[in-house]
Amino acid sequence: MAEVVPNKQVIFKDYINGYPKASNMVVTSDSTIRLELPKNVDGLILTKNLYLSCDPYMRNRMVKFMEGNYIDSFTLGSPIRGLGVLKVLDSSHPEFKKGDLVWGPLNWEEYSLIKDTKGLFKIQYTDVPLSYYTGILGMAGLTAYVGFHDICSPKKGDTVFVSAASGAVGQLVGQFAKLHGCYVVGSAGTNEKVDLLKNKFGFDEAFNYKDEKDLNATLKRYFPDGIDIYFENVGGKMLDAVLCNMRVHGRIAVCGMISQYNLDKPEGTSNLAFLILKRLRMEGFLVSDHYHSYPKYMKMILPLIQEGKIAYVEDIAEGLENAPDALVGLFSGKNVGKQVVAIAHE
Amino acid sequence: MAEVVPNKQVIFKDYINGYPKASNMVVTSDSTIRLELPKNVDGLILTKNLYLSCDPYMRNRMVKFMEGNYIDSFTLGSPIRGLGVLKVLDSSHPEFKKGDLVWGPLNWEEYSLIKDTKGLFKIQYTDVPLSYYTGILGMAGLTAYVGFHDICSPKKGDTVFVSAASGAVGQLVGQFAKLHGCYVVGSAGTNEKVDLLKNKFGFDEAFNYKDEKDLNATLKRYFPDGIDIYFENVGGKMLDAVLCNMRVHGRIAVCGMISQYNLDKPEGTSNLAFLILKRLRMEGFLVSDHYHSYPKYMKMILPLIQEGKIAYVEDIAEGLENAPDALVGLFSGKNVGKQVVAIAHE
Repeated sequence: MAEVVPNKQVIFKDYINGYPKASNMVVTSDSTIRLELPKNVDGLILTKNLYLSCDPYMRNRMVKFMEGNYIDSFTLGSPIRGLGVLKVLDSSHPEFKKGDLVWGPLNWEEYSLIKDTKGLFKIQYTDVPLSYYTGILGMAGLTAYVGFHDICSPKKGDTVFVSAASGAVGQLVGQFAKLHGCYVVGSAGTNEKVDLLKNKFGFDEAFNYKDEKDLNATLKRYFPDGIDIYFENVGGKMLDAVLCNMRVHGRIAVCGMISQYNLDKPEGTSNLAFLILKRLRMEGFLVSDHYHSYPKYMKMILPLIQEGKIAYVEDIAEGLENAPDALVGLFSGKNVGKQVVAIAHE
Repeated sequence: MAEVVPNKQVIFKDYINGYPKASNMVVTSDSTIRLELPKNVDGLILTKNLYLSCDPYMRNRMVKFMEGNYIDSFTLGSPIRGLGVLKVLDSSHPEFKKGDLVWGPLNWEEYSLIKDTKGLFKIQYTDVPLSYYTGILGMAGLTAYVGFHDICSPKKGDTVFVSAASGAVGQLVGQFAKLHGCYVVGSAGTNEKVDLLKNKFGFDEAFNYKDEKDLNATLKRYFPDGIDIYFENVGGKMLDAVLCNMRVHGRIAVCGMISQYNLDKPEGTSNLAFLILKRLRMEGFLVSDHYHSYPKYMKMILPLIQEGKIAYVEDIAEGLENAPDALVGLFSGKNVGKQVVAIAHE
């Protein structure tokens, strides 16, 4: 007879307004799970969940209803869902077998019995920390790749500005731009992150936006001849300052606007007339439209990791009980690098 | 001995803040001109000026300095400059001869002695009102053409929304979109203009934005399944409402933002997060980057005019003395159709 064990979960408790709080979730061990597949049912996998990805987009799932939202809200009383790395403990699904490592959508819980395996990718390459599949080898990596290469139309010598530059996506965008022969400046919200940008990720310049009184002047200092490419992660005042400093025919890839998500009413962007004056293209994108590029991306990124040509910083919270704080910390910039939660290390 | 005649001019008097006023210009007959080319100087043309184009972009030249401006300010004490139709009275320039009709940049005055003929196009086709070269056969036409066909990436069946739709550019964009097999709705600021849109220009629907309390709801009414293409001429509240109603992978061509030009501080645009949610592309453009497409455009548009497949409405002010009011009227929507000033009819 298989063991029945407590299954710790992070349950979604309240729809939010404004900033998400850890108290909108509750960590409980009330549930149990039998560590055995049900008999006579095919197509199931039983998983032990190893690493969780904390991503800004998840806030969209914590609101009750958002006009135009592309994704469903979380269900009250059910576990938070996100992306992560899982180990298959047992399988009645023809494509998975015991011991497989996979990444993809999962519940925030220690063990899962999964009926719908859609979106789960089998992990082939394990000579890296498995947590990388929550970031550089997962959605954040692909986001940086398609955002920079497909949306920004970069050319060698272009001047590139990245906001939230030490985050999961930003740190990669900056390095992809450097590898492409661009001049790259990043902004972040602490001096520690600014150090990382310059000394670990190889940005040409970086600044702490919280120390700058006049972002327009700051950008003029770093880009006396203007910005060709802006990789937008934050929105708000930064976007307005950037618009004033774009060069003719510049491109803005809109990946996120994290400074705006928690405001009752977004700050207005006042300088859109520069789209005309400078003939700018501003384009939003979602990585989910670009999954087909994942194999191409893996072919590009794996050698770079193996040859040590790319740096990657994670901020790993240990234990499912710390997952709510880790998720919420994204919105105050508490994380340094990609925010991960380690439930178990295998 | 050639005649010396008074040369009426519209002189630029004051840099502006906010709305341009007719009193920022002065119409004077203080200048005179000798209706003869100077001897022993080659490369000159003497012109009689027939039609002037009034365009919203001209406001950019009435401010003292605007960061990022792509065009020089007007010179205080000198004539306003714009585009228009001219007749060559005499020429020592090898490419022009007496009697030629041309269109391009000119001073707002009855006669000009022109040294720099750059930008002047010879008019080949005269079986239309010559004033058309200030609009449908000039910059407004080319703007509508490249803005719609090159920037909007239209497909048959797309839903298209045009603001300031009865203006010089808007009326053409709507008709090009109909010819392309699109569903087209336009907005304008009077019921007379709305009638024109529906009954003269063949828009599927049109509305008076001043009668609508909730533009978001209005757009939902006309576009229950969303907007594929927005041709942006106005900015401000309309843009915010449009952003909420765009379809996935929609395109916004930013041609102008006339509602914002005269404000001390532009209204902020709050709904840019929809760029991400709906993966929108928003792109500004200036017709001056697209002059090379003019011959292709003429080849397309002339048969349409000849076959009566395109309608075109002008609002012609008679006499140079009415030019300041005509220009200023653009910013309160006084004009119905393309605003032209007729100095002389030939």
